[in-house]
Amino acid sequence: MKEIIQRVKGTRDFYPEDMAFRTWLHQQIRVVSERFGYQEYDAPFLEKLDLYAAKSGEELVKEQAFVFMDRGGSEISLRPELTPSLARMVAQKQNELVYPLRLWSFGPFWRYEQPQKGRTREFFQWNIDLIGSAGYQADAELLAICADFFRQVGLTPEKVRININNRRLMDSQLQKIGISQDQKQIVFRMIDRRDKMRPDEWVSYGLSQGLTVAILDALKELLDNRNLWRESPELTEIFDLLKKMGCAEYFDFDPQVIRGLLYYTGTVFEARDAAKDGRALLGGGRYENLVGDVGGDSLPGVGFAMGDVMIQVILEKYGLIPALTVQPAKVVVTCFNKESLSDSYALASVLRAAGIKTLCYPEFVKLDRQLKYANRVNARAVIISGPDEQAAGKITIKDLENRTQMTVERNLLIETLESMNIF
Amino acid sequence: MKEIIQRVKGTRDFYPEDMAFRTWLHQQIRVVSERFGYQEYDAPFLEKLDLYAAKSGEELVKEQAFVFMDRGGSEISLRPELTPSLARMVAQKQNELVYPLRLWSFGPFWRYEQPQKGRTREFFQWNIDLIGSAGYQADAELLAICADFFRQVGLTPEKVRININNRRLMDSQLQKIGISQDQKQIVFRMIDRRDKMRPDEWVSYGLSQGLTVAILDALKELLDNRNLWRESPELTEIFDLLKKMGCAEYFDFDPQVIRGLLYYTGTVFEARDAAKDGRALLGGGRYENLVGDVGGDSLPGVGFAMGDVMIQVILEKYGLIPALTVQPAKVVVTCFNKESLSDSYALASVLRAAGIKTLCYPEFVKLDRQLKYANRVNARAVIISGPDEQAAGKITIKDLENRTQMTVERNLLIETLESMNIF
Repeated sequence: MKEIIQRVKGTRDFYPEDMAFRTWLHQQIRVVSERFGYQEYDAPFLEKLDLYAAKSGEELVKEQAFVFMDRGGSEISLRPELTPSLARMVAQKQNELVYPLRLWSFGPFWRYEQPQKGRTREFFQWNIDLIGSAGYQADAELLAICADFFRQVGLTPEKVRININNRRLMDSQLQKIGISQDQKQIVFRMIDRRDKMRPDEWVSYGLSQGLTVAILDALKELLDNRNLWRESPELTEIFDLLKKMGCAEYFDFDPQVIRGLLYYTGTVFEARDAAKDGRALLGGGRYENLVGDVGGDSLPGVGFAMGDVMIQVILEKYGLIPALTVQPAKVVVTCFNKESLSDSYALASVLRAAGIKTLCYPEFVKLDRQLKYANRVNARAVIISGPDEQAAGKITIKDLENRTQMTVERNLLIETLESMNIF
Repeated sequence: MKEIIQRVKGTRDFYPEDMAFRTWLHQQIRVVSERFGYQEYDAPFLEKLDLYAAKSGEELVKEQAFVFMDRGGSEISLRPELTPSLARMVAQKQNELVYPLRLWSFGPFWRYEQPQKGRTREFFQWNIDLIGSAGYQADAELLAICADFFRQVGLTPEKVRININNRRLMDSQLQKIGISQDQKQIVFRMIDRRDKMRPDEWVSYGLSQGLTVAILDALKELLDNRNLWRESPELTEIFDLLKKMGCAEYFDFDPQVIRGLLYYTGTVFEARDAAKDGRALLGGGRYENLVGDVGGDSLPGVGFAMGDVMIQVILEKYGLIPALTVQPAKVVVTCFNKESLSDSYALASVLRAAGIKTLCYPEFVKLDRQLKYANRVNARAVIISGPDEQAAGKITIKDLENRTQMTVERNLLIETLESMNIF
């Protein structure tokens, strides 16, 4: 037996039923993004590695990016994330664009990670950003969009939580307990990993990184303080505004939310299954300097990204994926014998011109097999035109839904299909 | 001045107005594909190079594919075309799928070619295929889909021509004039390039490839014979069926149409600007062996692909791109002073919950600037709630289209916007 060539590890095939889900998800994202006045855009799928080198963080660039030399000798990356491309696009047209600029996108990304539940190497991601506004209101708007999306797809606050923190708050708190600027990146990584390590493991790791027992104790206390947000005027205002916007029930303060991307400077947030099942559903934050870092003038932004893989996992878990019926055609035109095939094709053209999704069996096979096919593709009706019908200038319509059949004048065909609500 | 990081050569940014075109094109493609009962699918954007090595043709694989080693040491290609992936997907689920299988897709592809008018290195492509039917009717169906698409976007038969040929016909004709099996690929390439070379250049090239003057004369005669299709029963049937389907006016026979892909075995076709301006708009054909070549059981197919770049060029040339108004929001809620910002945000949430696309200016700036912004984003209405309105429990609505203004009770706001047809 021959071997079928395998697909690349961590990539997915989208057969029609998988594609129906992707299209549905894209549509839900569109509805929510547009409700808040955001416009769809896209960036190239290939970017120069330099674009990420500055600010995306070492793990993303050195370990996860798919990088290659193109035939012209430049170092190219399949995009592992979108925000740097957005910053580049804004920098390029900085004086033409209208601010505040609200943009969203849905497209493919690549990260070389170990495939597992909720993670593939090639995935799709919703990105949404507000550029050109420094106020906490912009942060609250993006958070409200997260909540609105979850509401849109039926994920109630009992099922998902959006956890918020602020990098500036953490900076000042870490400084207070005696963590130096040099140690900050190490401590951020430790905070990020606290839930993934055993407590004793975590402490040993901290000691190995040069932190003292006293500092680690103070750090633990800090990370367990759920009221710390009261020390951040921004977070206080944000929680207040979310209440006014009617979606506060989705949000918690969580001092352990740091997010990996180096460019975040203020608010950071992520959403997770309330049962703490699996990876984050989405993550985002405020970045003050990114447009400047890629060569533009300084301009602040805030945004988030949501992958398609984990959201599918949680929607499946809670039974929230709608039945996406795959019905390629409303009507199947059969052919009665070899000689009438071209008449069937001609008739199908007439139905299509009238706006009905129609297909023909493209060769002559027994009528039974054609009917079975019509059932398998979930068609609503089948058209039969045998010698009797042809002699009488008539057409037979089989209604597969109601299991009825009728024979009508050929020139009444479209009308009859209309009366069956077949459009 | 800092330098802005440049995008990769041959890639494109899609700002909202560019994205609006891509979305519109995808929608036209969807309408036509679904009218014929085809279902949307997608394949990974990365595939193993082996998948193309067998059958896509040397130029595509060796010169044009973006190939790299992944971190696991496999040779990976950014997909330069879709048909081999489709064949792989069919082979994988060969016994589960329902035939005839009709599938379409719209997504990104990469070819390392010199960027020029009508050509980029990263581009989008419509692919549509019918798998599992060997009859000429399937070929005619795909041709009718081409014609239907052109009709859908306003490209009349005076503006575009679809040129058809048959590889089997050419095989037998070439044999007849004394061209050996070994010379066939050379001659196919010569035929493909005849219109791109001067006649004398073409003849010298033929001689340098080992063809004789007599053979070259016979070849020229063959390629100028516009009635050659009569010798092909398939082509005769196809032209006849296209007439019955009501779209014959789009089609010509052209013995110079060969198409580059090695896997085509029968009908081949391409569409071009009738003025012979620029590159082909689309190309396709019948492939009998592809599913078998990637490891499945033998199963025939026919399909075509259309890129997004040339079609945009011709639609622009003939003024056929509709005005794709970019209107991110119907309503802009202004804020009157710093203190009322959160009230504005709360009001915007109410409007969104009622289904109105709404945005807020996310910080307090002078009302004039907010109104200017509302005009620039093309909003239909602006909501103003100043101290007078607030004291009286009212709201002012500025209609930017009709340049009118009214003040209504706050609880009549949604109703009033409804009466303005703002949804």
